[in-house]
Amino acid sequence: MKKHGANGAKALVLLSGGQDSTTSLFWAKNKFGYVETLSFDYGQRHKIELKSAKKIAKLADAGNTVIKIKEFEALKNNALLDKKINLKGKDSVNKNLPATFVPGRNILFLTVAAAFAYTRGIKDIVIGVSQVDYSGYPDCRAGFIRSMEKTLSIGMEYPVKIHTPLIKLDKKQTVLLAIKLGVLEIMAYTHTCYEGKKPGCGKCPACVLRRKGFDESGVKDPALG
Amino acid sequence: MKKHGANGAKALVLLSGGQDSTTSLFWAKNKFGYVETLSFDYGQRHKIELKSAKKIAKLADAGNTVIKIKEFEALKNNALLDKKINLKGKDSVNKNLPATFVPGRNILFLTVAAAFAYTRGIKDIVIGVSQVDYSGYPDCRAGFIRSMEKTLSIGMEYPVKIHTPLIKLDKKQTVLLAIKLGVLEIMAYTHTCYEGKKPGCGKCPACVLRRKGFDESGVKDPALG
Repeated sequence: MKKHGANGAKALVLLSGGQDSTTSLFWAKNKFGYVETLSFDYGQRHKIELKSAKKIAKLADAGNTVIKIKEFEALKNNALLDKKINLKGKDSVNKNLPATFVPGRNILFLTVAAAFAYTRGIKDIVIGVSQVDYSGYPDCRAGFIRSMEKTLSIGMEYPVKIHTPLIKLDKKQTVLLAIKLGVLEIMAYTHTCYEGKKPGCGKCPACVLRRKGFDESGVKDPALG
Repeated sequence: MKKHGANGAKALVLLSGGQDSTTSLFWAKNKFGYVETLSFDYGQRHKIELKSAKKIAKLADAGNTVIKIKEFEALKNNALLDKKINLKGKDSVNKNLPATFVPGRNILFLTVAAAFAYTRGIKDIVIGVSQVDYSGYPDCRAGFIRSMEKTLSIGMEYPVKIHTPLIKLDKKQTVLLAIKLGVLEIMAYTHTCYEGKKPGCGKCPACVLRRKGFDESGVKDPALG
């Protein structure tokens, strides 16, 4: 697990403790000479995500920093933060988006990541977004990522590159990537469920998508024991 | 002071309590049918800024919301947040930038403002940045603002417009704009000094710039009593 990629550059991986960011972390370990991780405590429904992130970073032999983000609590109007809102409903402003949409979430995460990276002399940032299984989130698309990368580089006068190893992968392909990287068993420690249940409620949109990925790839989800 | 502009649109003004954001607020009151303000408690050296913002919003008959931003404290390595750092020095990473540079500050402020605006159904955001007297900050330039506007609109799937009434104005021209808007006397309540002194230490880069603006415009700074 301590082997690092041939590329001598340093990378910062956004690690939520879920399947996608975990797979992205091990992808980054293969590619970069040095990797550290950043997690956000942003008032998410369940702190279990942060525990998973800490455990996974340790398994990857990578540092993990947690930064508190308070402002989304002030904007609380979506299902990922407010337990009173139906997880399967629609966003209150844009009915084309799910209720789980947190406006500006990845914009904020990437901004804080870039500011943190700036102070550490890191220019490569890795985020596990996918525009295939993106649940309708506009801040998971390639066009957004390229625009964000440009905005950060101009705004900090510091050339930031945002890597998105999963951008064109669906859940099945993400499982296959984890197999290829030799880290399928690590997925046992990842957390996916919106309800905060371990190993998962099996019914929320995130659990359904995860199960579909494992089913289609033909391997058993190691989180299911 | 209660007169609103002819344009029926709603606008959100980022209000720090300084001269520039205050002038921008009254510019917005002339232009838009409804204006509210947003201030950030981000661990700045002096809370006096937030008090000024509250007072000025009241004078403008505009609502004022304060949102706490915690993450910059985690990134503390610059003079505006850390009292141990020399205000007149250089940034530790980019020697072309002053020590007062907070990487990603306006990117974060605009992101939170846009997310807040989203929840309020507001599409017009006003920020008092100037690329003339910008102290070397890259996130005060027009190129950055246009890129940020595009990133926010794509990332939230919500068309945001960022207005920068002062972008081409130097401090003298900003004073002249305040005179034209009939709000010169309001400047008595604005706070500028990096040292948190009232009416100002007269020596820090912000105080020096402010004095230059009033001197060149030929009017007395009303903050000086």
